[in-house]
Amino acid sequence: MVESVQVELDELYALSTAILTRSGFSGVHAAAISKMLSTCQLDDCQSHGLFRLLMCCQTMRGGKIDGHILPVVEASDSAIVRVDARGGMSLLAVEAGMPLLIEKTRTYGIAAMAINRCFHFSALWPEVEQLSAAGLAGLAMVPSHSWVAPAGGKRGTLGTNPLAFSWPRQNQTPFTFDFATSGFARGEIELYLRAGKPLPEGVAVDAEGNPTTDPQAALDGAMLTFGGYKGSALSIMIELMAGPLIDDLTSMESMAFAEGTGGAPYHGEIILAFDPDHFSGGRVADNDARAERLFADILDQGARLPSQRRFEARARNTARGYVEMPAALHAELSAMLD
Amino acid sequence: MVESVQVELDELYALSTAILTRSGFSGVHAAAISKMLSTCQLDDCQSHGLFRLLMCCQTMRGGKIDGHILPVVEASDSAIVRVDARGGMSLLAVEAGMPLLIEKTRTYGIAAMAINRCFHFSALWPEVEQLSAAGLAGLAMVPSHSWVAPAGGKRGTLGTNPLAFSWPRQNQTPFTFDFATSGFARGEIELYLRAGKPLPEGVAVDAEGNPTTDPQAALDGAMLTFGGYKGSALSIMIELMAGPLIDDLTSMESMAFAEGTGGAPYHGEIILAFDPDHFSGGRVADNDARAERLFADILDQGARLPSQRRFEARARNTARGYVEMPAALHAELSAMLD
Repeated sequence: MVESVQVELDELYALSTAILTRSGFSGVHAAAISKMLSTCQLDDCQSHGLFRLLMCCQTMRGGKIDGHILPVVEASDSAIVRVDARGGMSLLAVEAGMPLLIEKTRTYGIAAMAINRCFHFSALWPEVEQLSAAGLAGLAMVPSHSWVAPAGGKRGTLGTNPLAFSWPRQNQTPFTFDFATSGFARGEIELYLRAGKPLPEGVAVDAEGNPTTDPQAALDGAMLTFGGYKGSALSIMIELMAGPLIDDLTSMESMAFAEGTGGAPYHGEIILAFDPDHFSGGRVADNDARAERLFADILDQGARLPSQRRFEARARNTARGYVEMPAALHAELSAMLD
Repeated sequence: MVESVQVELDELYALSTAILTRSGFSGVHAAAISKMLSTCQLDDCQSHGLFRLLMCCQTMRGGKIDGHILPVVEASDSAIVRVDARGGMSLLAVEAGMPLLIEKTRTYGIAAMAINRCFHFSALWPEVEQLSAAGLAGLAMVPSHSWVAPAGGKRGTLGTNPLAFSWPRQNQTPFTFDFATSGFARGEIELYLRAGKPLPEGVAVDAEGNPTTDPQAALDGAMLTFGGYKGSALSIMIELMAGPLIDDLTSMESMAFAEGTGGAPYHGEIILAFDPDHFSGGRVADNDARAERLFADILDQGARLPSQRRFEARARNTARGYVEMPAALHAELSAMLD
């Protein structure tokens, strides 16, 4: 049993911004990052909540990130929004481009945002949920570092390459998923390492290519994708879509760029957005009802929708005004302000 | 060992069009369908080659399809091409809309084609490979019939919901994948049934929800998605993107519409297209080289790229001018012209 502490919602955000500004991030970067971390922590998403402050500070210590640089949104007459993060953390760049992405999606029916030259550490679901909150569907992809072997391979070539999707639902939480195309999220392996627990079978190989359940051996070796050759193909697609398509690094190049400094990987991100009003020819209400019948049939047979546990946590934590987080993590973070 | 016969490339196409026109398809529909089937057969893709003529004819006998109706491409000032197949087979609709999809993608950087009210039986890779042949990346999705249980569920709610992607490569075959999000393609299960072979473990449950390796029990029960809850989430996304988003049927609705007549399911299809020139800011050559380094690293460790076997078959069959297909299938098809 991990000992936990209760942290009020305001305190979460304040703790995060204080740590980030002391670490070297400007106020606007600290605010964008803290908003993301608090959003994740509110949903009991421990792997992408305030735990990631450790990675943010490690990234700053690595010396490659600019904690003060402002992103630039490039003008275009196409359905593509380009945001140059100029070597800063991704979240301020996403914030800067999101209104234009929403506007372009409403204009063209489909649009995309390409974020370039950003450091990235965060969950993708808060970003696609900004789109579904605006009545749009969203799909996001990023590479990471080349920790994952392709199907049939022996060494890390692919990133953990998450894929996130959100679909707007009337008067309720959206249909959202956000999963790593690796069998396990890198962050989860780190949590297993911290907790001293063995990994499940089949998610990793050691440095010699042999199956392993040891978290450190997995971190030293390569992870495997979920779903065999299909998951591997999907992961390669994410490399291409969030890398060469948008003129940015693959996970291999990102790993090489880092030169072992650790912290967040540096690369690009792509977010696609779809306007149901355009795509359905204005028949959104009929099609919302159709989607709800699909969800109802899934729930009716005892299956769960993705993110259901997260939304339950959000409702519970919002109602009681605090979250629970591991006491050791909270102590470690608080000590960073001493 | 399945006995096979050699069929010349011209003969493939002629056999297909003769069977289709006799079955009740107009010349233009027969041509569009035969082009697809020959393309698949050329690549030794037995499950989606001339074998599918049996399904096309069964669809016609089902009495719901119109074999002569012409698709209508709707004008729009957005980045969405809508094609109404008006109850015909999908392939003529895809042919009708593809030039405008390519044009819109070059204009806007990203574009989509929504095909509505079509019967669909075909592989998706020939469609996304039309985009990669034009220097664009393509991503296609369709629902099917609700043969597949969601993760944690007991009955069919989702379709086999294939996802296909193609990425253009200079002077060589593209990077392409096309996989069912079910653990197995429905067509493959039918081939196992015809061959009297047991299915692999873990791809299906019987009508009571118990695991089965019997192809007929699987066809009577429900299939499972690949990759557990992640594959299931992806399959639900495909339902939403190729169904409610574009004002068309989910796999459950498609199944209900068929009323047990068999043949090809009736629903919609979505194809997304991406222009690397727009997305990369004109830096296509640098990014092609980057993608090639990724592919080289995959191949260098002994892994294969998706579709590699298919491209090898294409080269071999094109060079020798004929394909090999099961003798029993060829005899069955030939007998349909007696």
